[in-house]
Amino acid sequence: VPSGDTALSRLVRRLLSARRSLDLCLFSFSSPQLARAVQLLHRRGVRVRLVTDAQYMGLHGSQIGRLRHAGIQVRHDQHSGYMHHKFAIVDRRMLITGSLNWTTQAIQSNRENVLVVEDADYVKAFQDEFERIWEEYNPANYSFFPERQ
Amino acid sequence: VPSGDTALSRLVRRLLSARRSLDLCLFSFSSPQLARAVQLLHRRGVRVRLVTDAQYMGLHGSQIGRLRHAGIQVRHDQHSGYMHHKFAIVDRRMLITGSLNWTTQAIQSNRENVLVVEDADYVKAFQDEFERIWEEYNPANYSFFPERQ
Repeated sequence: VPSGDTALSRLVRRLLSARRSLDLCLFSFSSPQLARAVQLLHRRGVRVRLVTDAQYMGLHGSQIGRLRHAGIQVRHDQHSGYMHHKFAIVDRRMLITGSLNWTTQAIQSNRENVLVVEDADYVKAFQDEFERIWEEYNPANYSFFPERQ
Repeated sequence: VPSGDTALSRLVRRLLSARRSLDLCLFSFSSPQLARAVQLLHRRGVRVRLVTDAQYMGLHGSQIGRLRHAGIQVRHDQHSGYMHHKFAIVDRRMLITGSLNWTTQAIQSNRENVLVVEDADYVKAFQDEFERIWEEYNPANYSFFPERQ
């Protein structure tokens, strides 16, 4: 439950335990420390996939452009509603989820919660949601006529 | 994981199962349906406590004023950072938490997740956080010299 720098280092440590895959479903992502951890995993050969919110990914300080530039696969929604999830799945077995957006403000200044869950039923529900979103936000399926596809 | 009206009715049903207490720790609260459920519990004699974010409780459409008017105890932070939690604890045994703010926009338009957890260790971590915040935001402890107390 507690936030702050210790919570950040614990989160980074859990992310860096990934050996095969990291699936990220993040409303906003502006924390440089978390972006560095994700890039490191990508360079180690971990398969990183990132889903994010279209309105937030262009905001000042967003790390999405840098991660794309590093070669990480990123997909985003096409809706007016928010892609408001904030979860990560490490190696398809550890779910990290909660109220915390991956921003410096959230980490340093807010009251937030982060849950780490290894129960297979919960992990599967979020992994299924990730796969649904990953497919739905595939650019090959883009419709250029708003609103919902 | 799924959001939408079915998720709303399931959430309302879980809330209405409360017999003794409902502890709410909510960044923003503007959904009229959820406010009605909370008021109903209050009228039934369930002890409702609500912690919210000072910057968001005054926004247009916020239900906080109505709930206070109905006699429900509300406390809020005094910080520039956000009280960003979005969780409810029913009868000190069922935790409902996730990405979902209690707003109509979130319920109807966003991709969101809501976890229901009855595992005692998780519930206790959130109940402890609630009690810490409830005490910290006690008006008797207000400091009129910003920033953090």
